[in-house]
Amino acid sequence: MAKKQKIFKPKARKPRGFRDRLGDEIVAEREMLARISAVYEAHGFDPLETPAFEYTDALGKFLPDVDRPNAGVFSLTDDDDQWMSLRYDLTAPLARYVAEHYDGLPKPFRRYAVGPVWRNEKPGPGRFREFTQCDADTVGAPAPYADAEMCMLFADVMEAAGIARGDYVIRLNDRRLLTGLLETTGLAGDGEAESARRGIVLRALDKLDRLGEEGVKLLLGPGRKDESGDFTDGAGLDAAQIDRVISFVTATAQTNTKTCARLREIFEGSETGLVGVETLKVMTNELAALDYKEDRIKIDLSIIRGLEYYTGPVFEADLTFAAKDEKGRPVRFDSVGGGGRYDGLVKRFKGVEVPAVGISVGVSRLLTALDYKKAGDSAPRGPIVVLALEKDRMASYQAMAAELRAAGFRAEVYLGGSNFAKQLKYADKRAAPLAIIQGSDERENGEVTIKDLELGAELSKNIEDNKEWREDQPAQFTVKRTELVEAVKKTLASKP
Amino acid sequence: MAKKQKIFKPKARKPRGFRDRLGDEIVAEREMLARISAVYEAHGFDPLETPAFEYTDALGKFLPDVDRPNAGVFSLTDDDDQWMSLRYDLTAPLARYVAEHYDGLPKPFRRYAVGPVWRNEKPGPGRFREFTQCDADTVGAPAPYADAEMCMLFADVMEAAGIARGDYVIRLNDRRLLTGLLETTGLAGDGEAESARRGIVLRALDKLDRLGEEGVKLLLGPGRKDESGDFTDGAGLDAAQIDRVISFVTATAQTNTKTCARLREIFEGSETGLVGVETLKVMTNELAALDYKEDRIKIDLSIIRGLEYYTGPVFEADLTFAAKDEKGRPVRFDSVGGGGRYDGLVKRFKGVEVPAVGISVGVSRLLTALDYKKAGDSAPRGPIVVLALEKDRMASYQAMAAELRAAGFRAEVYLGGSNFAKQLKYADKRAAPLAIIQGSDERENGEVTIKDLELGAELSKNIEDNKEWREDQPAQFTVKRTELVEAVKKTLASKP
Repeated sequence: MAKKQKIFKPKARKPRGFRDRLGDEIVAEREMLARISAVYEAHGFDPLETPAFEYTDALGKFLPDVDRPNAGVFSLTDDDDQWMSLRYDLTAPLARYVAEHYDGLPKPFRRYAVGPVWRNEKPGPGRFREFTQCDADTVGAPAPYADAEMCMLFADVMEAAGIARGDYVIRLNDRRLLTGLLETTGLAGDGEAESARRGIVLRALDKLDRLGEEGVKLLLGPGRKDESGDFTDGAGLDAAQIDRVISFVTATAQTNTKTCARLREIFEGSETGLVGVETLKVMTNELAALDYKEDRIKIDLSIIRGLEYYTGPVFEADLTFAAKDEKGRPVRFDSVGGGGRYDGLVKRFKGVEVPAVGISVGVSRLLTALDYKKAGDSAPRGPIVVLALEKDRMASYQAMAAELRAAGFRAEVYLGGSNFAKQLKYADKRAAPLAIIQGSDERENGEVTIKDLELGAELSKNIEDNKEWREDQPAQFTVKRTELVEAVKKTLASKP
Repeated sequence: MAKKQKIFKPKARKPRGFRDRLGDEIVAEREMLARISAVYEAHGFDPLETPAFEYTDALGKFLPDVDRPNAGVFSLTDDDDQWMSLRYDLTAPLARYVAEHYDGLPKPFRRYAVGPVWRNEKPGPGRFREFTQCDADTVGAPAPYADAEMCMLFADVMEAAGIARGDYVIRLNDRRLLTGLLETTGLAGDGEAESARRGIVLRALDKLDRLGEEGVKLLLGPGRKDESGDFTDGAGLDAAQIDRVISFVTATAQTNTKTCARLREIFEGSETGLVGVETLKVMTNELAALDYKEDRIKIDLSIIRGLEYYTGPVFEADLTFAAKDEKGRPVRFDSVGGGGRYDGLVKRFKGVEVPAVGISVGVSRLLTALDYKKAGDSAPRGPIVVLALEKDRMASYQAMAAELRAAGFRAEVYLGGSNFAKQLKYADKRAAPLAIIQGSDERENGEVTIKDLELGAELSKNIEDNKEWREDQPAQFTVKRTELVEAVKKTLASKP
């Protein structure tokens, strides 16, 4: 109430890297999540919702960007001085939940989860610090059957999300192949330095499709300077080691059977590697028996999935259809989901290994991709707007809207003021298909005018003469007030 | 990999005041939110989703607990040293959004929002620091018609959420009645101290049903010491002032018309008060014309809604049905939602008043209340579990599950190990209605056994003799493998 005081006016802006979403995008995401959730539920997964916050020590540090192990999460101290962090994925909270309730859970424990996660990273175009994940995990089931089921579930989920068969592929690899390869390449050391070096190799290979073979070779060897001049340390492998690693990741054959046969040769003598080969063999046999062929699920040895916690099979969902942006340039889609086996994640709490496998669907990337698919669809349609021309007749306008809603239409009364042109402009801005108009003339005759705004917009494109337009007005007509709902039904039924 | 090193094992626990939710509770909330959202959409509201974070200066301080104006939110600094806070409601982010996009928005702007909010408060039983809100607001529409619509929407939402007509009431008051009352009671001063004093009065009255008349009188007067010995400062009114205020908040009549008539007398000569009376009069006239009578929407002068930002009508949704807890004691429900007009909220950014009115539904309280209503309903049912008895036949079990899913059932294969008893125990723990069993005998005969776990549980209650049970086993039967789906359909169709 301090009227004369200079009042601080904050600038209305959202924090960097966050976004607002309105209308159709939310509805599209909600519908996709409902369809995916239904697939998870049909497969016996129950929903689990954990808090946005976890204690920082319980969350652990399993972020993709291990180059910055202390960054990446939003953290604060609670009033009892314990550090809490916002979850950066849905897997770490699952590990905490399973460890907390281990004895009481049915095992295997199947749960799915849908919700926002937060990453305290540098925002960029299309790169947000808050986004939705949609995961399914099976905890307490060993490889390989639970893993095969995850691959099939992943394929089913893609199709439920609206990606047609043939437009996606679930790529499959096994982390132990790489481990075996590194062992037989003389990188089997047990110490932390050696382990870190294997991590560098994994992350380097993960960049194969982004940096190409030459870029990856630099990262496997001496290190690499990027365009901006930043230098990334390399793993320090020699030329023979690099060749061996690269020739492995490019050894994928046309069929899963052939790839498995090739792998058996490569890994002769590597115990770790052969466990991976055998797992892939059993999995792909089961997939083939259930008719999930290479068009849906295919071994691809270049799939790495950077996360260090994976211990067995890893999966990645990729889109394979061609799309072009508005300038006609081909669009390259990032992977729309990934997953794998992580037998060690609960061990952090329990001290014992608990086998677990899961997938995570990249919801916003899927939505973006689907937008390319259905480009050209009709624009979204807003509610029917009942104009409010006489202030003291508001109840009668609300009654019209209520009748239309009862008949299944979206409908609202304009509540902003009595200016007629402004009301019609509002209806246009809302993309209303129809405006319902009852001035005093119509009211006295027991009538109501229905203005077809979509037809009107269509016609006005073809009419040059403003006078002709006003005289003709084929896009609006008058009916008895008692026939309002029927007339609206008929008008909207005739539209596409 | 440092095997001999002592490894830190964090304790698996969630942060204080947060909770995990599993299965049916999530499904129930999701379904309720879908029904409420459908009502909002039918009335022309579009969904808006804002980020979890807002800049702290943009969020402002409109928390209910104005006694602790600097507490209440979770805040942290971004890496550019700007303070960000997690949203504590969905209204403050709406104000920021409207201010940021004001010129481009259709006006009135109708939006609804669903999502979690966070309060950095002391947790208690049933009092969580993260919970879901579900709001609808109309920005840019003046009183009283937008306010009347909000009341009707509120009633429709209660019924969509599953509260029958007669089991709830939307209580209605106008903040300007109280302001007028305070003015005519000699509390009209313009300074900050006087404004703060009026705030104390508002918050005192808001505690009427919790503290009773005597407790509130202390808060209006000298102040009050609670059971724990904590002292709350009072507003310092004298006895005559206190009487006047109390007699107003207890003056509600049976019908809205009578209450309005009474109010006209009370506020004769108070300009502010009469604006409030006139607003309520127009609103209740419209409500009556649209058949929203006192059984659904009723003026109640004791409704305060503590938030200081309200500037006109305020609403509160209360449940009126009787319920008892498990010990037979009557349960008192807190209000399940509230709202009102707040014409000043966008002013913080824009410098000009933007009329706005909205409601917020307390989703978890509604769910709790509904639980009392439907107590005694059947327990939730899990997926059909296909046992996996022969390791190398996994694909055939998955094929059975896939067939059942294609027929519309939830179905999964047990993936944990081959022990038969353990598998049946798992099926029980999952509340599976049926277990599907194919051992080697059944397989060789082209058959499959269907075990009715619900019927089995029912029968085993009545059977004393374990031997009789095993010989009889009416709860399981064998069918041809090709008839699996049909037999499951028939069995489940015969159940409640």
